[in-house]
Amino acid sequence: MRIALGIEYDGTGFQGWQRLSHGASLQAAVEDAVSFVADAPVEVVCSGRTDAGVHARCQVVHFDAPVRRDPRGWVLGITTRLPHSIVVLWAREVPDEFHARYSARARRYRYRILNRPVRAALQRQFVAWERLPLDHVAMHRAAQVLVGEHDFSAFRTVHCQARHARRDLHEITVARAGDEVVIEVQANAFLHHMVRNIVGSLIPVGRGERPESWIAELLAGRDRIVAGPTAPASGLTFLGPRYPRQWGLPEEVCL
Amino acid sequence: MRIALGIEYDGTGFQGWQRLSHGASLQAAVEDAVSFVADAPVEVVCSGRTDAGVHARCQVVHFDAPVRRDPRGWVLGITTRLPHSIVVLWAREVPDEFHARYSARARRYRYRILNRPVRAALQRQFVAWERLPLDHVAMHRAAQVLVGEHDFSAFRTVHCQARHARRDLHEITVARAGDEVVIEVQANAFLHHMVRNIVGSLIPVGRGERPESWIAELLAGRDRIVAGPTAPASGLTFLGPRYPRQWGLPEEVCL
Repeated sequence: MRIALGIEYDGTGFQGWQRLSHGASLQAAVEDAVSFVADAPVEVVCSGRTDAGVHARCQVVHFDAPVRRDPRGWVLGITTRLPHSIVVLWAREVPDEFHARYSARARRYRYRILNRPVRAALQRQFVAWERLPLDHVAMHRAAQVLVGEHDFSAFRTVHCQARHARRDLHEITVARAGDEVVIEVQANAFLHHMVRNIVGSLIPVGRGERPESWIAELLAGRDRIVAGPTAPASGLTFLGPRYPRQWGLPEEVCL
Repeated sequence: MRIALGIEYDGTGFQGWQRLSHGASLQAAVEDAVSFVADAPVEVVCSGRTDAGVHARCQVVHFDAPVRRDPRGWVLGITTRLPHSIVVLWAREVPDEFHARYSARARRYRYRILNRPVRAALQRQFVAWERLPLDHVAMHRAAQVLVGEHDFSAFRTVHCQARHARRDLHEITVARAGDEVVIEVQANAFLHHMVRNIVGSLIPVGRGERPESWIAELLAGRDRIVAGPTAPASGLTFLGPRYPRQWGLPEEVCL
């Protein structure tokens, strides 16, 4: 019996999703909790790994359950064994053909920049900080060239293990909410550090240090070295994957 | 030379505003940082003390500076000496007659309730949690009886040291934002635990366990014992005091 879980987490203090030989990983925390409730060792597969310090509004994982429990039993049982920074939002029985990673047709991220002269105190784990005023309208316009299917090598870390750099970016928006600039982006999939590298290149445009056309130049040049720096992990939240409706998952993760 | 500061803080991990013989207090952290920059011991007076675990969007304090610094120097110098959970938003020179507490004509608070079946992971330091669905419209209607000048003894902790319980409540709103119910309230001043006790009494109304008229009954009865429990500190943020415009303070703390 295959089970899918929706999971929310505060990535502060974790070394990222992936289980490592040392350091706290989200995967280890979730697998330990699931294994306890299943009363047997269980491996979980996630829709997309997140880096150290990156948060998730609704990560999705699947696992093959060696025992039968109703969805509510999985949610409450697993949550009880998780640290306060992780919670199971829902559980669903899914067909054996469902795969948290391969069945996903899109992923969505949000990046929050606190844009004011002084650093953050409240919400400091969830924002990056830019003291110079950002022109979010210029950033939004500049970013639109990224929409569509492109080779995103310019925004890919050297450590990225993907076979190729072509991704289909569905949507990117830059908007202001009070003293925050909020970037939301959806693509079929993302390269390693792709969102943070795009944000890091939009910031010089927002400061007026680079023209709006710079983003198009970077994309065409496919050279990571000339693009902006990688924006901090703290500002990034994985809103979640999106699946076709046929799998019967909650609305928030459906296309 | 009297200086006013606007201060933002994450109250998690602090024993509250007031300096105590043991435990971390916001007052001690701020006074230590101000004293370092002033190069002499300085006492600060705040607009209103906050309890353990309560946050502030814009607390205001004043102090008498034994040395001359420009406002930018105070902001940057003090912030450098503060922990990451506290930041100085602005500094202003004010007349010697200005008093952070006595010059304030109003205070404003926000209370956030995460209203969903499972507990918080993200934002858990900034919300309270209610698993049963809350009828925010009923809560809003019930709360309107509190507007105006009343004896708020029903919502006052036994530890409250105020001479009398009459306060003038200017406005209270209950609204829903996604899976959060957000309560905002402004009064000339508040009794100890008054906001958290009002919220604790609105929750049974939101759950449908008490009629909307219960809030009016509690207010008229002036008996703390029969009102709802004190809602958790984590959901409460002091948005800040409000002063007459004559003092020349930033817009966010003006009436």
